[in-house]
Amino acid sequence: MPRTHTFQAPKGTRDFLPADLAVRRHVENAWRAVSVNHGFDEIDGPTFEHLDLYTVKSGEGIVSELFSFRRAGGDVDYALRPEFTPTLARMYASAARTLPKPTRWFCIPSFFRAERPQRGRLREFFQWNADVIGDETARADAEVIAVTVGVLQRLGLGPDAIRVKVNHRSEVEEALDHLAVPEEQRPEAYRLLDARAKLNPDKFRARAAEIGIPDIDGLLGWIDARADVPDRCRPLWDALAERDLLDWCDFQRSIVRGIAYYTGLVFEVHETSGKERAVAGGGRYDTLVEMFGGPPTPAVGIAMGDVVLRLVLEDHGLLGDAATYLPAPAVFVISGIKEGADPVPRIVAELRSHGLHVRASDRASRNIGKQLGEAGKARARLAVILGDELTAGKATVKDLASGEQSEVALDALAEHVAAALSK
Amino acid sequence: MPRTHTFQAPKGTRDFLPADLAVRRHVENAWRAVSVNHGFDEIDGPTFEHLDLYTVKSGEGIVSELFSFRRAGGDVDYALRPEFTPTLARMYASAARTLPKPTRWFCIPSFFRAERPQRGRLREFFQWNADVIGDETARADAEVIAVTVGVLQRLGLGPDAIRVKVNHRSEVEEALDHLAVPEEQRPEAYRLLDARAKLNPDKFRARAAEIGIPDIDGLLGWIDARADVPDRCRPLWDALAERDLLDWCDFQRSIVRGIAYYTGLVFEVHETSGKERAVAGGGRYDTLVEMFGGPPTPAVGIAMGDVVLRLVLEDHGLLGDAATYLPAPAVFVISGIKEGADPVPRIVAELRSHGLHVRASDRASRNIGKQLGEAGKARARLAVILGDELTAGKATVKDLASGEQSEVALDALAEHVAAALSK
Repeated sequence: MPRTHTFQAPKGTRDFLPADLAVRRHVENAWRAVSVNHGFDEIDGPTFEHLDLYTVKSGEGIVSELFSFRRAGGDVDYALRPEFTPTLARMYASAARTLPKPTRWFCIPSFFRAERPQRGRLREFFQWNADVIGDETARADAEVIAVTVGVLQRLGLGPDAIRVKVNHRSEVEEALDHLAVPEEQRPEAYRLLDARAKLNPDKFRARAAEIGIPDIDGLLGWIDARADVPDRCRPLWDALAERDLLDWCDFQRSIVRGIAYYTGLVFEVHETSGKERAVAGGGRYDTLVEMFGGPPTPAVGIAMGDVVLRLVLEDHGLLGDAATYLPAPAVFVISGIKEGADPVPRIVAELRSHGLHVRASDRASRNIGKQLGEAGKARARLAVILGDELTAGKATVKDLASGEQSEVALDALAEHVAAALSK
Repeated sequence: MPRTHTFQAPKGTRDFLPADLAVRRHVENAWRAVSVNHGFDEIDGPTFEHLDLYTVKSGEGIVSELFSFRRAGGDVDYALRPEFTPTLARMYASAARTLPKPTRWFCIPSFFRAERPQRGRLREFFQWNADVIGDETARADAEVIAVTVGVLQRLGLGPDAIRVKVNHRSEVEEALDHLAVPEEQRPEAYRLLDARAKLNPDKFRARAAEIGIPDIDGLLGWIDARADVPDRCRPLWDALAERDLLDWCDFQRSIVRGIAYYTGLVFEVHETSGKERAVAGGGRYDTLVEMFGGPPTPAVGIAMGDVVLRLVLEDHGLLGDAATYLPAPAVFVISGIKEGADPVPRIVAELRSHGLHVRASDRASRNIGKQLGEAGKARARLAVILGDELTAGKATVKDLASGEQSEVALDALAEHVAAALSK
């Protein structure tokens, strides 16, 4: 008897059994279909990158949030990708000359963060990214917001449930200028303002003082004040209006994003109840492609992870019974024949060879009623029933929705089934 | 000006630009569609697992082939998954009570090997796995071979180009019994026999002597002799005949597979020219689920990687121009209007809101002929042309295949386009 071990998935990662995977595919299919409809082309990069792809722009501080490693006997440091933008900037930089202007890319890979797992945050997660590269106008910003809204809409969310909150880094930048916050502290200032809701007020204030932000109360008062759309965001608002998106969007100064590389538009997607973390976030990063060796290239993008999105969809009752996302068979083959060779495998193989999704019972029972029950549970469209008429070279085809049935010669079975399915 | 860096993808990994990704999706879609048609349910597991999930069955020797790591400050060893079967056995073991018998699972994840990259072998690759768990009969073996052949067929390969080579471990086991090769050396013996084609004959012989295989020439002579299908493989051959698969399969004693956990059927898929490595391999592993804490459970499965498969498809001219795998737009919106506000974004947004794949030119040119050229290059089905008739609230819809065109009122545009597309 072999030695017995009990194993679980690593902390913060997930096993996807069929029903779970079907829900994941439902979300991924929405991401993919809407991205394609909006003219984005799918790409992908390696699951791990050279570690310095991440440290070069974020400093060594980011290393503790990464899973990093070397090959046994190797001397190169790698890290599991924590986000896609550095990979995208690297890929664009090395192919820039051959790419259209603008380039619209999307991807749906998995990402990794060595953080403590909590509600909405796991160590491995799936994330959709969509980016427009090589267009500095508000049109590109609006296209990124449009594809984001398209995804939310396709998954059943409306502007009552979810908002796109938009800001421009320059708005806050001017306030920080006014307060004479040192240039080199700006990335930390954004990181702090971004983390505000998660920190207790004393800790927040102490950190603000460390960074050298004077009059933090004045700054927060200004940030939280109701603000009209500023002139610098007017072209974006016009472009959003053209796309019928104003219903979904709010201008809000408190949105700054914590990531260092944003240069203009920043935005986040939030559920209106405030119960969950941000569903998505993005912005403009006009210097990153150049930093990775490419030509000066404006760019703007969005990222939406699967973990918070699934929570929000569940909160709103937008994920039905997981089993309904499983692919439904076209045909379920049923046999009542108790003697002689089992005719099912041959018929199943024949129908599958025509590209059909075909299943049959795995139970020994030859009770036709029970097998019809199994076919219904699997949500099959048709049943092919093999009974006494098989000796005459015939089978019965039954439409499981209408109950309609007819006897068909075996050599016309595939043709008859195809016709019944196309009804 | 920011500091400039030049980065590349890590050695042995790949960037997928849109045309490359489209070819990858073409292969993945074949894997998925055929698996679903054959009644397999899709699953997935974590990208990394606890390191001991791999060492427990393969010993510490495997560690050098893995990318392994810890979280900074953590004390748990992880490894990027080099194959799926241990994950599958772990997942099945922990959910066994709730799962149907047999369970049919497939997956299409990426895997990682810390090997020297070479033709057909990369450090990150995609691999399809399909397994039937909980059925000890030849029927399960035949179903796994059937879904494998289904995939090959769907990708355009026929039995003249590619063969499924089948053996049973017990055949070789009896020969090793006869030669009195010690039980504890059997895994090494399989590994050596599996690597035979890649080793030089002297090295092969020396290793055989080390392992304690006497009369290696006699053994090889027996292995290479033309052999009839043995009695123990008869039930499988009958099940293959029932599924019309005998044309694809050969019995061949030289197929042993190098992996320790196989217990019965072993098989590999080889291109007939012998130019490339094995396209796929699999077999029966009746003890692995129990080893991971599950009930005693027979199981059989197949794995097919994307790297060799793509080489074989290319060798056989079965991959067309990569661009033809990119999704084609339903509609390309064209404008000849030079003055006033650009009407294109609004029309594009309106059509996209109906779930259509819509593109437009990114060039400044308002030359309709040039834009029609772009639409044709993108393989769009229809062009919506905005010209002088727009002032009367109308646009022209042109079928780019037939050349047929008609003027349509803007408020009936989406409806008209949908009708034209369903033709």
